[in-house]
Amino acid sequence: MNLDALVSAALDEDIGPGDLTTIHTVGPDRTGRAQIFAKQRLVVCGHDVAARVFAQVAERLGDEVAYRAAAPEGKEVEDQSVIAEVEGALRTILIGERVALNWLMRLSGIATHTATFARAADGSGMRVVDTRKTTALHRTLEKHAVRCGGGHNHRMGLFDGVMIKDNHIAAVGDLASAVRKVRNEVHHLVKIEVEVTRLDQIRVAVEAGADVLLLDNMDNVALAEAVELARSLKPSVVLEASGNMTAERIRSLHGIDLDVVSAGGLIHQARWVDLSLKIR
Amino acid sequence: MNLDALVSAALDEDIGPGDLTTIHTVGPDRTGRAQIFAKQRLVVCGHDVAARVFAQVAERLGDEVAYRAAAPEGKEVEDQSVIAEVEGALRTILIGERVALNWLMRLSGIATHTATFARAADGSGMRVVDTRKTTALHRTLEKHAVRCGGGHNHRMGLFDGVMIKDNHIAAVGDLASAVRKVRNEVHHLVKIEVEVTRLDQIRVAVEAGADVLLLDNMDNVALAEAVELARSLKPSVVLEASGNMTAERIRSLHGIDLDVVSAGGLIHQARWVDLSLKIR
Amino acid sequence: MNLDALVSAALDEDIGPGDLTTIHTVGPDRTGRAQIFAKQRLVVCGHDVAARVFAQVAERLGDEVAYRAAAPEGKEVEDQSVIAEVEGALRTILIGERVALNWLMRLSGIATHTATFARAADGSGMRVVDTRKTTALHRTLEKHAVRCGGGHNHRMGLFDGVMIKDNHIAAVGDLASAVRKVRNEVHHLVKIEVEVTRLDQIRVAVEAGADVLLLDNMDNVALAEAVELARSLKPSVVLEASGNMTAERIRSLHGIDLDVVSAGGLIHQARWVDLSLKIR
Amino acid sequence: MNLDALVSAALDEDIGPGDLTTIHTVGPDRTGRAQIFAKQRLVVCGHDVAARVFAQVAERLGDEVAYRAAAPEGKEVEDQSVIAEVEGALRTILIGERVALNWLMRLSGIATHTATFARAADGSGMRVVDTRKTTALHRTLEKHAVRCGGGHNHRMGLFDGVMIKDNHIAAVGDLASAVRKVRNEVHHLVKIEVEVTRLDQIRVAVEAGADVLLLDNMDNVALAEAVELARSLKPSVVLEASGNMTAERIRSLHGIDLDVVSAGGLIHQARWVDLSLKIR
Amino acid sequence: MNLDALVSAALDEDIGPGDLTTIHTVGPDRTGRAQIFAKQRLVVCGHDVAARVFAQVAERLGDEVAYRAAAPEGKEVEDQSVIAEVEGALRTILIGERVALNWLMRLSGIATHTATFARAADGSGMRVVDTRKTTALHRTLEKHAVRCGGGHNHRMGLFDGVMIKDNHIAAVGDLASAVRKVRNEVHHLVKIEVEVTRLDQIRVAVEAGADVLLLDNMDNVALAEAVELARSLKPSVVLEASGNMTAERIRSLHGIDLDVVSAGGLIHQARWVDLSLKIR
Amino acid sequence: MNLDALVSAALDEDIGPGDLTTIHTVGPDRTGRAQIFAKQRLVVCGHDVAARVFAQVAERLGDEVAYRAAAPEGKEVEDQSVIAEVEGALRTILIGERVALNWLMRLSGIATHTATFARAADGSGMRVVDTRKTTALHRTLEKHAVRCGGGHNHRMGLFDGVMIKDNHIAAVGDLASAVRKVRNEVHHLVKIEVEVTRLDQIRVAVEAGADVLLLDNMDNVALAEAVELARSLKPSVVLEASGNMTAERIRSLHGIDLDVVSAGGLIHQARWVDLSLKIR
Repeated sequence: MNLDALVSAALDEDIGPGDLTTIHTVGPDRTGRAQIFAKQRLVVCGHDVAARVFAQVAERLGDEVAYRAAAPEGKEVEDQSVIAEVEGALRTILIGERVALNWLMRLSGIATHTATFARAADGSGMRVVDTRKTTALHRTLEKHAVRCGGGHNHRMGLFDGVMIKDNHIAAVGDLASAVRKVRNEVHHLVKIEVEVTRLDQIRVAVEAGADVLLLDNMDNVALAEAVELARSLKPSVVLEASGNMTAERIRSLHGIDLDVVSAGGLIHQARWVDLSLKIR
Repeated sequence: MNLDALVSAALDEDIGPGDLTTIHTVGPDRTGRAQIFAKQRLVVCGHDVAARVFAQVAERLGDEVAYRAAAPEGKEVEDQSVIAEVEGALRTILIGERVALNWLMRLSGIATHTATFARAADGSGMRVVDTRKTTALHRTLEKHAVRCGGGHNHRMGLFDGVMIKDNHIAAVGDLASAVRKVRNEVHHLVKIEVEVTRLDQIRVAVEAGADVLLLDNMDNVALAEAVELARSLKPSVVLEASGNMTAERIRSLHGIDLDVVSAGGLIHQARWVDLSLKIR
Repeated sequence: MNLDALVSAALDEDIGPGDLTTIHTVGPDRTGRAQIFAKQRLVVCGHDVAARVFAQVAERLGDEVAYRAAAPEGKEVEDQSVIAEVEGALRTILIGERVALNWLMRLSGIATHTATFARAADGSGMRVVDTRKTTALHRTLEKHAVRCGGGHNHRMGLFDGVMIKDNHIAAVGDLASAVRKVRNEVHHLVKIEVEVTRLDQIRVAVEAGADVLLLDNMDNVALAEAVELARSLKPSVVLEASGNMTAERIRSLHGIDLDVVSAGGLIHQARWVDLSLKIR
Repeated sequence: MNLDALVSAALDEDIGPGDLTTIHTVGPDRTGRAQIFAKQRLVVCGHDVAARVFAQVAERLGDEVAYRAAAPEGKEVEDQSVIAEVEGALRTILIGERVALNWLMRLSGIATHTATFARAADGSGMRVVDTRKTTALHRTLEKHAVRCGGGHNHRMGLFDGVMIKDNHIAAVGDLASAVRKVRNEVHHLVKIEVEVTRLDQIRVAVEAGADVLLLDNMDNVALAEAVELARSLKPSVVLEASGNMTAERIRSLHGIDLDVVSAGGLIHQARWVDLSLKIR
Repeated sequence: MNLDALVSAALDEDIGPGDLTTIHTVGPDRTGRAQIFAKQRLVVCGHDVAARVFAQVAERLGDEVAYRAAAPEGKEVEDQSVIAEVEGALRTILIGERVALNWLMRLSGIATHTATFARAADGSGMRVVDTRKTTALHRTLEKHAVRCGGGHNHRMGLFDGVMIKDNHIAAVGDLASAVRKVRNEVHHLVKIEVEVTRLDQIRVAVEAGADVLLLDNMDNVALAEAVELARSLKPSVVLEASGNMTAERIRSLHGIDLDVVSAGGLIHQARWVDLSLKIR
Repeated sequence: MNLDALVSAALDEDIGPGDLTTIHTVGPDRTGRAQIFAKQRLVVCGHDVAARVFAQVAERLGDEVAYRAAAPEGKEVEDQSVIAEVEGALRTILIGERVALNWLMRLSGIATHTATFARAADGSGMRVVDTRKTTALHRTLEKHAVRCGGGHNHRMGLFDGVMIKDNHIAAVGDLASAVRKVRNEVHHLVKIEVEVTRLDQIRVAVEAGADVLLLDNMDNVALAEAVELARSLKPSVVLEASGNMTAERIRSLHGIDLDVVSAGGLIHQARWVDLSLKIR
């Protein structure tokens, strides 16, 4: 579902067959200006989707509205900062307010939360990346919010990267043959990642042709050992660590030669930040 | 968007043109059983949507799968409890796993978070309700999760209740005429709620015909005074308090004669709970 | 389905893979002006949807067209009055003509028919309202036409008001417990209406918490008695009468203290009025 | 839009995010049987769409329901006749009731109205047919209702037949060249119909290659003369009369050698018939 | 599916959740001009769809782009001819390039292939037409390409013409009754075509009321005999020949009094022509 | 668009508002069996989509039908071989026939054409792969047909692999910086392919981090030299050759150490094979 379709469905959800309050009180001739401002320190994310919300409401009603970002996407701002202004028909602003703010608050929440993880990795050479633990239909936006907060992305879905996990191996019965089967079938621009939890799996995975290893739920001692073994077997292997990652844990990983740390919590442990829209 | 369409779009988002890993490793003849279990204490929510995820994957592939709830919707379970079992084609289970878990983890997170609020209101006669601060396209599910956690719902959207807020009054210029305009237009099964922040607004709103008052951002002293005034003017008025509600704050409201406490945070401050799916 | 989607589907239905007549006879360079005029006395309704029909045809073809209302929405006009003008590419006007006229004729038919009901209620204090007996996918437009004719609307659908009817009571077995169950579940901006056909049901319904009573299929003597009883039990109760309402019947109800008279026939007994489009 | 999509959209329109009444009062375990019966003499039409309404509601809820036609499609039945029975989950019956009845009442209304026209043509050799004056998105169903009433159909839309009308000629400037242009472009299974209002146009149209003539708004004397002229020029020409046709007018046309009489009023002057659903 | 929806779905198919290459390398400020040129002699077809591809990409990205046809639709051009220019944001040009070229190459391939058939019929009085052997969802475009190459179209689908084929007769059991049943049901602007393979069928079909005969898989001797018989029975009958038609075969049919030659191969034996887009 | 949606749209395209021929001649009670057989030697492809075509038609009509593959997907069969049987309601078979055959003929055409390429590569160690030169909305099916013919697939679209081509470099201005920019942004399971046409570009691309090289439009001497250089710089680099590949050319490449040969012509130079459906 592309962004315009998503915004349209969100408006359908909230407006349904009509806004009972605004439509009966505010005529098309009432125009003005509103400000969206932060009620806490936060990293801004979501201008594009918010702008489309107001634009679509205006189009539905035959109104005019303009959305202007006052703080750029990805910037950290202080409490009380104005992050955007909306100018035009007041009924359009009132009808779009909640849907637009909901997105800005969610996405800025993810960006703000991710920033604490990304800062923890600064200087380590590790990328902090997200996972497929995202909200249905919001994955593209949530992954954008991760980048706004200084993180990077993992694969987008099941279709643009191979990840052989414990349940796949349980279903197939044999790690090495799973890797080889996939290698034979998938196209030549896709890398194969294999989840390993024990050292003996590393050798099997690398020899079967894994390009990337997911070192899952290991403590730092095990991680260091795993990294050393994997690098000795295949220097170009990409190494990713995962498992209840926090900013503190990430800081403790500096010095272990990892390429990537993945954390679903960038997205699913983030809370909305607080924003408010006021007509001036 | 009805639930089946939402589930289908979520699968499209994750699967895209095809799961590169499972489809090349696990044939249609591999069948088995998986368990979904809790990795923390939580209130269960989301069985219906999870069941549809697996059913739709099976239908796309021509497989068979059965989803069985092991702990009922709305029940609080201990860490390590099995909450559901899925039996059938392993490739269907593997392909649906992430999308199904994502919903179960989000919705159970909201139910679990709401339960702390609902318990705080026990015995007070107040309903704890949600707001329109929900995730786009997920509102029906999130409001269901609130009920699973012991909360109640506010209106569904802009179309099934009237709420005149500060920005409406700013746009119209006059609270009383806004109430009267709406009363004259909307159908006779809809109640009109008016947001007030000062005592003098209460008399105006009630006399103009408000059925419900939203007492916004008042401290307990102001709330008690507002409730007394409103009840004296119109005994049948419904009184709702809002503004950064927490479980603690709700406990402090016992004794003030409120009908409803609303808190967007039931949903937007909830974090996902931790669940895991294992093939047995 | 929002209005633009509805218009687009209507054009798809009529045009299908292409207009065989116009496209082969009228080039994009042929421009001109057409008038839509009344062939009988009528209340005008449908400008917004007609304008979108021509606009969408023009957009599909890359043409220009302008639609101008000559008689405002909701106005009663005489036979032969021009109600709208369309100017621009003649092929766009020819291709959109039928779909646009179909809507104008239907909606003006409903507005014209409703006006006779609304006039019958003038001075009585009663609202004349529609029901859910509407044409699939046209409900929002038909309810708009009722307002153009001087009527008001009842609830939009099953989602924005509670109506407990005879069949619900047959299914539940007990009127009072049905009312209480609903009261406990629905949000606090929704009123509960209960259909009653006998006096003894009125006391039960009111005591169980009904906000509105639907007095169905009673003669005027029974209605007057029902109104008196209901008002004595709960002065604020909203009272609605229904059952084969006609303008004549409505005139006979003046003096009975009803709030609302509902009539599905506003819509389903209306016939299309006659309009014609002529290229000048 | 195919029939299942149409039914689904109609349910979305009425149910929206949920039926507030039924869902909170009638559990999935309550089953029973309902009858749909006529409250007037009528021609039955709409079983297929009504059956799909209940089937789709049942599928959405995970319920079971069976719809059985008690009087066959197209049959004329007496007042109080049972025309269908629905058996299964009562909540499914209650939720689908209005949408199903709305269609049965509309379509049976068209069939019943058409029957008076069709009977008027009996024995004349003329077909009574509909026009493109139909309700948006309902054309296929309305044309089916016309056939149930004993009528026939005209072309389905702009795409399956050529009709050159007065406004086309106004736009092109010349009847004969319009006919020839179309003949050269359209495929060889399509006939070309030309609207004529004067005798001199008949010769031009036939000589340019018209297969069918629409004799519009002529009185019986003019019609008879037109028919004689046309038949003398081209014996195989198909002759259609139109213009405010009523059953009375049609009876007066017996003896004039017409093939077809078209009347938009079959559909747009029909009113809904009265049906009721009762749980037994 | 209308053209804009088709183009949008095609872009979704190719772009999915995002172009990994362009979006990370070419900023919105990079603008320029590209040429699309022929790498062989060909008949140009597809400008409208190609223009929409670039326009839709630009709209998704908020970019500007202009598409200009350098060789008109339907024109035969030499190798190395520039057929179109695209000017604007380079990222829009790069993202739309493949989808636009794919359509131009396919459609020009069909037009180029058809031209050899159409030329073979020049001077014979026969139309060369396509069939329903087209690519799913591309029929309207492919039939347009046939016209660009000098061919004509057969019916668009099952809905705008009657064709009784061998399998229909096998299912019904009797050619004559099949023709009569259809004649009695279909509207009066539709012609009835009957497929015949033997002379004895011609008399049956014509006497039952066939308007058009499809003379299938006959050699030239049989064709000539069939044509003579059919014309003697009904001079106005339309005669169509089919069955593995090639340009050579068509040339051999000059002198046989056929109206139409149909060939699925116009479309399904065409290969893409070669085009290239270069940024200048 | 998933496969069921694609099939449904294809049926809408062909059937539109109704099959005029079948529906009026063949009742629902007529059942039987049909065979689909080859009229030439071919590789079978398309059973899944053909089966869905008949299943969807049956579902629309309330009929029963069963599709059975007689020759398995991917198998090469002789002229006159039965490849599938369809049994059930004859009207369903007749209505679905054309759409089902169209897909079987197209897809088997691609599989049959690809097989000649794949055989040419046998024993060479090279994969023969397709490109993004596919038919809009048919890419997944066409790529499946390539695999049926013994080929492999390239990336699915712009979203699951990076390909930096000449036009990208023209837009960016510098090959090396383009590679580095992409590397920094895309996720760690995606490989980066760079199109090169000259030897000096190979060193730049490899040093900037290219994982795969597309050696475009080189003759065999240049290819051999390029392969040698690339392997010496980075042994693990994947090497793909492209540019007007034919089976003959592929045979000439044995001995050059390529990994992949890509050819858009697998799909866009394939012609439909000939199949026929006969009711027995």
